[in-house]
Amino acid sequence: MFNKLKAACRADWDAYVQHDFVRQLAAGDLPKACFQHYLKQDYLFLIHFARAYALAIYKAETLEDMQHAKAGLGAILDDELELHVSYCADWGIAREDLESLEEATATMAYTRYVLERGMAGSLVDLHVALSPCVIGYAEVARWIQAQNFTVLEGNPYRSWIEMYSSDEYVAVADAAAAYLTKAGAGLSDADLARHTKTFREATRLEIGFWQMGLDRAM
Amino acid sequence: MFNKLKAACRADWDAYVQHDFVRQLAAGDLPKACFQHYLKQDYLFLIHFARAYALAIYKAETLEDMQHAKAGLGAILDDELELHVSYCADWGIAREDLESLEEATATMAYTRYVLERGMAGSLVDLHVALSPCVIGYAEVARWIQAQNFTVLEGNPYRSWIEMYSSDEYVAVADAAAAYLTKAGAGLSDADLARHTKTFREATRLEIGFWQMGLDRAM
Amino acid sequence: MFNKLKAACRADWDAYVQHDFVRQLAAGDLPKACFQHYLKQDYLFLIHFARAYALAIYKAETLEDMQHAKAGLGAILDDELELHVSYCADWGIAREDLESLEEATATMAYTRYVLERGMAGSLVDLHVALSPCVIGYAEVARWIQAQNFTVLEGNPYRSWIEMYSSDEYVAVADAAAAYLTKAGAGLSDADLARHTKTFREATRLEIGFWQMGLDRAM
Amino acid sequence: MFNKLKAACRADWDAYVQHDFVRQLAAGDLPKACFQHYLKQDYLFLIHFARAYALAIYKAETLEDMQHAKAGLGAILDDELELHVSYCADWGIAREDLESLEEATATMAYTRYVLERGMAGSLVDLHVALSPCVIGYAEVARWIQAQNFTVLEGNPYRSWIEMYSSDEYVAVADAAAAYLTKAGAGLSDADLARHTKTFREATRLEIGFWQMGLDRAM
Repeated sequence: MFNKLKAACRADWDAYVQHDFVRQLAAGDLPKACFQHYLKQDYLFLIHFARAYALAIYKAETLEDMQHAKAGLGAILDDELELHVSYCADWGIAREDLESLEEATATMAYTRYVLERGMAGSLVDLHVALSPCVIGYAEVARWIQAQNFTVLEGNPYRSWIEMYSSDEYVAVADAAAAYLTKAGAGLSDADLARHTKTFREATRLEIGFWQMGLDRAM
Repeated sequence: MFNKLKAACRADWDAYVQHDFVRQLAAGDLPKACFQHYLKQDYLFLIHFARAYALAIYKAETLEDMQHAKAGLGAILDDELELHVSYCADWGIAREDLESLEEATATMAYTRYVLERGMAGSLVDLHVALSPCVIGYAEVARWIQAQNFTVLEGNPYRSWIEMYSSDEYVAVADAAAAYLTKAGAGLSDADLARHTKTFREATRLEIGFWQMGLDRAM
Repeated sequence: MFNKLKAACRADWDAYVQHDFVRQLAAGDLPKACFQHYLKQDYLFLIHFARAYALAIYKAETLEDMQHAKAGLGAILDDELELHVSYCADWGIAREDLESLEEATATMAYTRYVLERGMAGSLVDLHVALSPCVIGYAEVARWIQAQNFTVLEGNPYRSWIEMYSSDEYVAVADAAAAYLTKAGAGLSDADLARHTKTFREATRLEIGFWQMGLDRAM
Repeated sequence: MFNKLKAACRADWDAYVQHDFVRQLAAGDLPKACFQHYLKQDYLFLIHFARAYALAIYKAETLEDMQHAKAGLGAILDDELELHVSYCADWGIAREDLESLEEATATMAYTRYVLERGMAGSLVDLHVALSPCVIGYAEVARWIQAQNFTVLEGNPYRSWIEMYSSDEYVAVADAAAAYLTKAGAGLSDADLARHTKTFREATRLEIGFWQMGLDRAM
């Protein structure tokens, strides 16, 4: 199903995965201030993503789905946020800066879109809206690894690239794709058309998130 | 689809449509206090049903679905509530009584179930949860009209029976059934299983609503 | 605040805490089948309570509130459900019975009320709706311990009573009360009136839950 | 309360009310293509605003609040959308164009923010998120009327300016402000701080909406 969704918005998908922010990150010449801006907003992004997983628990029909979503929630609240805080510290961003941060419009745009889509639609709608992020980041890292202009040696963003290339992260992305495949079986055409629209809109909002980093925009 | 849903919970459906409250109403020997109790709770029921239609507007994907749900909302807020107030007045229940009413647990049970199902699920889930009421009342009236113990002449509940037998009401019920039929096309087995469960639970909560009237229970 | 809420619905609160189900449980003469029926429905109750905590995470404004609600969620999904399954096994109820259980109307009534109140209202509304359960069970256990007709020696329900009298459970209840106290500071009269209504309705639905056990009602 | 909220984000508020899009519209030299782009997105905006009013009905605690929100919903679905379609036709935008429109990220950003804020928070939170639009447009029109660079004679945007300066629209805006004033009485400091944040974020998203028109951005 994920491949079907991607194929239906190929140009947007490529514009997301191969965005200038990603290219500069791969080449190691992304301005530090852009990456810092991105990192800061990503902290707020994570908090809203935790809320999205909480919503997935609320919406779940089975204990299995509840546990699946709770794993995602726990990963963020128990680990990723603290990892993010310490990663930000490496980049000279203090915890207090993160805690008093103003939210950029691109951050509001994508996160609220996901939450609202998940509330108005079904559990599958929510997971579709999440997928350009969850599955997409693994694809971004894989794409980076495959480009001949990519430089890992001495690249200040190497740890970022390697985190999303790691077996752990790839396993998370694969699990999300497997969920969609299962959920996508037997969908009506109307459901599929709706999911395609959601996936495309979420992808466009991801593009906006990279652009926000590049422009250091609020 | 409505027929499929009914067939899947035949015993509960019959227990609802042919409930003692309905039988006594048809025969005209339902104690007046039971009917009054039912009427009062039905006022609160209507308010929550208006909220359910508002939720359906929020959840709609198309202007057509929004207008469809808005018609249901308007019918309640613009007409039915006032009709209900004046009908209650005929039965000696003052507007102030209605406005200061305590909600019976059976009323809370069914209305919150519908609203919560509609929020957690999709728009179709919401309409399935509403259908035992919307479509069921037309069926109750039709069943009453077909029984040989039914007495219309001199029956104090005649106007109630005739309201739900009216062409206007039957058209509302038919439209709701048509919506389900359309929504039900191309549903996956998992969706159908979920809707069957919802329909059955909502039907059981409708039985509870009649029983609340009969027992004058809070 | 919790004391204010209780005081505003004293008769209902006493009818809940001192319900016949509780009295018979204290005396040890509650029919085993009633307790089993209660235990089975309590399994479904727990699942919906986990959903309510997930909703509290979604609704939280601060990381602290998110972590607070996540602790409640984790307690249920990681521990209480499995404890409940094994406790049920002691009472001759198999895991498969729990997993294929039909939900009683009293279970639907209270759980959906809480979820719907929490969705329509604010985070505080949600916690108020939860409080008759979370804080109330500690009070029920304390009340049992203080009655002279209570028998612990040889009481088949002793482990249940002791669980809700335990320091661990009392700490959970105290934390919930402390949350309400903090949230209740500076509330407007309109907010307080709404919370009082919610608290009272939730308490009445808890009475319905005990009664469901006693009547082995569906 | 509205004045308090404005005062707390004065710079953002002025950047919204006095935005270049507004200035060029006042002077009559806004490029036609920018206005057309704005008009098209405003169509999608209206649909989501109708959903927000539906959400307000769902969240209402009183019949009066339900009727208040229903008036807003009806105004959009019964009148404003059709007016908008015919106004768009005057500007050379066909109904079919509106119906097959892609949503710009700025449109998604503001509308989903409002809906999500309204869902996660209380009814007051929802109305606060709506207010920069509902009340702000009247203020924009008043500001335009007061500037010496404003040209009405021969201004292609005159009808737009006069619509939002009309007694009818001012009455709508005044009613929304009166609602906030009433709701704001007796709010706790925590509530007020949250509303201030919401108001400021919604105002920033309104700025993004003007900018989207000016840049003809998707």
